[in-house]
Amino acid sequence: MARDNNQIILAERPEGMPDKNTFQFVKKDLENVKDGQVLIKTLYVSVDPYMRGRMENVESYVEPFKLHQVIEGGSIGEVLESKSDQYKAGDVVMGMFGWQTYYVAGENEVRQIDLSIAPITTNLHILGMTGLTAYFGLLDIGKPKAGETVVISGAAGSVGSTVGQIAKIKGARVVGIAGSDEKINFLKEELNFDEGINYRTTDDIKADLQRACPDGVDVYFDNVGGEISDAVMTELNRNARVPVCGAISSYNKEEQDIGLRVQQILIKKSALMQGFTIGNYSDRFKEGAKQLGKWLQEGELTYRETIREGFENIPEAFLDLFRGKNIGKLLVKIGEQEYRK
Amino acid sequence: MARDNNQIILAERPEGMPDKNTFQFVKKDLENVKDGQVLIKTLYVSVDPYMRGRMENVESYVEPFKLHQVIEGGSIGEVLESKSDQYKAGDVVMGMFGWQTYYVAGENEVRQIDLSIAPITTNLHILGMTGLTAYFGLLDIGKPKAGETVVISGAAGSVGSTVGQIAKIKGARVVGIAGSDEKINFLKEELNFDEGINYRTTDDIKADLQRACPDGVDVYFDNVGGEISDAVMTELNRNARVPVCGAISSYNKEEQDIGLRVQQILIKKSALMQGFTIGNYSDRFKEGAKQLGKWLQEGELTYRETIREGFENIPEAFLDLFRGKNIGKLLVKIGEQEYRK
Repeated sequence: MARDNNQIILAERPEGMPDKNTFQFVKKDLENVKDGQVLIKTLYVSVDPYMRGRMENVESYVEPFKLHQVIEGGSIGEVLESKSDQYKAGDVVMGMFGWQTYYVAGENEVRQIDLSIAPITTNLHILGMTGLTAYFGLLDIGKPKAGETVVISGAAGSVGSTVGQIAKIKGARVVGIAGSDEKINFLKEELNFDEGINYRTTDDIKADLQRACPDGVDVYFDNVGGEISDAVMTELNRNARVPVCGAISSYNKEEQDIGLRVQQILIKKSALMQGFTIGNYSDRFKEGAKQLGKWLQEGELTYRETIREGFENIPEAFLDLFRGKNIGKLLVKIGEQEYRK
Repeated sequence: MARDNNQIILAERPEGMPDKNTFQFVKKDLENVKDGQVLIKTLYVSVDPYMRGRMENVESYVEPFKLHQVIEGGSIGEVLESKSDQYKAGDVVMGMFGWQTYYVAGENEVRQIDLSIAPITTNLHILGMTGLTAYFGLLDIGKPKAGETVVISGAAGSVGSTVGQIAKIKGARVVGIAGSDEKINFLKEELNFDEGINYRTTDDIKADLQRACPDGVDVYFDNVGGEISDAVMTELNRNARVPVCGAISSYNKEEQDIGLRVQQILIKKSALMQGFTIGNYSDRFKEGAKQLGKWLQEGELTYRETIREGFENIPEAFLDLFRGKNIGKLLVKIGEQEYRK
């Protein structure tokens, strides 16, 4: 069967919010599978806010995307053909092969998914990078203690919703900030957060924070930056810890990111801010994944995922991340399995 | 001999820069010395930027000064009369008795100064709080490694000049930012800093930083906050550490402190900012003081102090801290020893 490889490439680097000119759909011939390689059919692709950073041509914690090359990102696929001893046709694998319908991978570029733990898509979120980001950012930097107050911005997102649940497991009071009543309900009703603040409808986020955090803020897990973080930073307690995970409010800004300077707060409160990315913890992924899997199987952790359909809808799904539409993890399903286990 | 106690009290809380209405000179009768107490004649008082924070009636890391009470601060005095077994007349002691000519202290409110190590005034700076602030902030938070680049703002001040010398002892490349050519010369000629940047005369502090730090900034010891810190933060290397010690540029601001938001930088660089005050390290003061004394005696550390004369000149000396006039430590001598050892 002749298969075309459909790809989405980075057509130009966006200034501000990416748009239809940022992406281009192209068709490529598939390479032949050589020894030690596997042919993968992509089943699911992940769209994540950090990918916006890779569209810029500036040094960051991950390399910029190359112009006119396929957009890389976390993906799950099925092995259709294997010239590697490690894989056979029908195996389900994950890797960074990104926004394309097929990929010929070296055997070390992908890893097999354990199908016994949870649905395969969880490997792109709660058992994957977003779960690990929540796990290490909260526990290694935030270090919440029982009875402390943990505030999370972007709380209904994939990382934030996992952070809150882990903080609850650790006995903390958990307050989530999100942008719709539907999200707040999700946090309080489904994830058992203690309080939720809808930053889009509040008149006074500072007053809301003070009501939700009568004992102040001990840990602020920051996914958004911007004005929301300006407000939370003023409520920090002495010896507070701030894992700085994301600044989604600023990723598409063309101008400088101007707001509250934090230096005086940090001094007065002996507070810590630590920026991080999950790559810092690569030598501890196994530990994190094992614990996350255990909590998931024991019902201590849950998740929400939204699965869009169709290769052609990937760019729009990505842009929706910045429109605050999604609850939990947003994925796009672009292919069906041909083998079944 | 009848002795009046002259005090400077906090007459009103300043908004913005303190002025003559902030302070009031008063005369008080001396209390009688009771059992377990000593009568102290003040010899030297310290003026420090952090005292500005205590003039506000807001929660901070130290209690606010009380209105109409004497301004507290580090002081050195001579015991004139002792009803404590621990002290005798002629002993030189230090404590927080502040801006007054005499003080009746409980025996545990003061501690004896070891006269064998260095001139007594060093106990108000390089062997005292400012030295310990430099020591713990740099070594416990900044953790400079040999060959790394350490940038210090407020570098010619008492803390900054000690930080730079300790960083040199640890083998780092040291770049100081200060506000006059005289200060820059002091840093480079007397303290052996590798580079100095005069922020008042530069046209482009970012370009100057890049020239002075061709390998980027691994540790930024921040004494000033404000625009200088905005500039240094953009030059941080991956895994950089920022001990946040002071924000003197902002202490007298009435409006909110608005500038560069640091969240994106912290994420991209996996960088750490940690606010601190020396009180956090009180259980390790002995360790720090011992090491500082050793370096001082071995000639590895040096210092500059400026000693003003006269009780009536204390407020003006304090205000000069915010005018960027002093190099090293600023003290005021307000009394002569009556006993000599």
